Amino acid sequence: MDKNQQVLQKNGETLDELFCGRLKILQKTFGYRFSIDALLLANFCRLQEGERVLDLGTGSAVIPLLLVRRWEGVQLVGIDIQEEFVDMARRSIALNGLSDRIEIRLGDVGDIRAHFEERSFAAVILNPPYRRLDSGRINRDNQKALARHELRGALADFLAAAAYVLKKGGRCYVIYPARRAVELIFRMRKHRLEPKRLRVVHSRADSEGQFVLAEGIKEGGEELAVLPPLFIYEAEGGYTPEMEDLFRDISVSSRTASG
Amino acid sequence: MDKNQQVLQKNGETLDELFCGRLKILQKTFGYRFSIDALLLANFCRLQEGERVLDLGTGSAVIPLLLVRRWEGVQLVGIDIQEEFVDMARRSIALNGLSDRIEIRLGDVGDIRAHFEERSFAAVILNPPYRRLDSGRINRDNQKALARHELRGALADFLAAAAYVLKKGGRCYVIYPARRAVELIFRMRKHRLEPKRLRVVHSRADSEGQFVLAEGIKEGGEELAVLPPLFIYEAEGGYTPEMEDLFRDISVSSRTASG
Repeated sequence: MDKNQQVLQKNGETLDELFCGRLKILQKTFGYRFSIDALLLANFCRLQEGERVLDLGTGSAVIPLLLVRRWEGVQLVGIDIQEEFVDMARRSIALNGLSDRIEIRLGDVGDIRAHFEERSFAAVILNPPYRRLDSGRINRDNQKALARHELRGALADFLAAAAYVLKKGGRCYVIYPARRAVELIFRMRKHRLEPKRLRVVHSRADSEGQFVLAEGIKEGGEELAVLPPLFIYEAEGGYTPEMEDLFRDISVSSRTASG
Repeated sequence: MDKNQQVLQKNGETLDELFCGRLKILQKTFGYRFSIDALLLANFCRLQEGERVLDLGTGSAVIPLLLVRRWEGVQLVGIDIQEEFVDMARRSIALNGLSDRIEIRLGDVGDIRAHFEERSFAAVILNPPYRRLDSGRINRDNQKALARHELRGALADFLAAAAYVLKKGGRCYVIYPARRAVELIFRMRKHRLEPKRLRVVHSRADSEGQFVLAEGIKEGGEELAVLPPLFIYEAEGGYTPEMEDLFRDISVSSRTASG
């Protein structure tokens, strides 16, 4: 472990390396850790050079870290309500020397007006914390904050925030459980974030949808493209070629802080 | 041609045989003819013995004819705004000796209260006339009536009618173009016909969705199952096994009236 890492990695955190070590990310050893949905969502986004992009509920900043690597010249801002995640995300960004391209704010998505100006972003990324509550893999302290979010309607808050910060014609990118896709689509339209691209993620070709990925355009007209489905596993086991492509460079190796 | 057929088939109509001749159906030679979406929709329905089922915009009555064959002991009622279709559908039903199981009414779906009592059906089938206008395969007379429907919002009318005639917990079955799926899902929820099962129909595994099939439950709670996708063609051409199954018995042979 080099000196820089020693300074930046804390107890109870792992240091994971993506893209064969070219991207480093700190995560809680036992708290919420990013999962396949974050990778799918990052992969679904289509950004353009020079755009300013907001990641709502950024957590470990995995999505900004993936996106700045993939898309040249985009500026990412992440916001998260949990102080310890914000602190950790900032250290991850420093570890990668990306502090000039990614900024992390401590704040509540439900109080977005306190942090950003109206119509100030070209794209917004939403991964509302539905799943964190389902997964049972979060610690007690976080659970409280997230439960509050869920009770207040995380999806509604996140969409309202996206509708506020997006320019007209701006895009939002969301992943959400397929079983709640009606709620997602209904609310996107309510918030005038018209769904324009939709992709269903199935575990296997013969299984029900697990997630939906959606791209909405602020104040866009009606015309949906339902993309070809994304299957994670082959019938005979193993990842599908598309998932293999997605994972090719993301072989994660994890190191626990020794100190 | 036997005598019964001679009496019942008119000029400008074809007599098509499905299920190796066990089901006969009259259709307009050049007007609107049923297409793959009607077959997909009929196949998607799940009925139970003893149920009374309404088919909105029944046309040639292809869906009732398919359903009474498949589901024992269901009673079908079809309604259509076009007199010549109603007349032809009734003759098809007589040809099959099914007049005791299928009834066809002449009427406007937008004026459903004039025809049926509230909460009087267990299931409703909707194939709104979006496609008939797109296809350019309808004659001038029909076009007028259908265009009126489309202008008034056929989908809204059909869903309002379904919401009116369905019992609480009753099901509606819809097929609609995938590019308009947001409109469908949004309006289904608005009409309290909560989408519970959704299936996307793709031409091929790598092509965008062409149709969505949806089952809604009147006053149902939120919980959507996105079914495995349905592909019509194999990558190398030819129908997929699932479509082959669907078509197995539906080899259509067409006869034009000679008189």
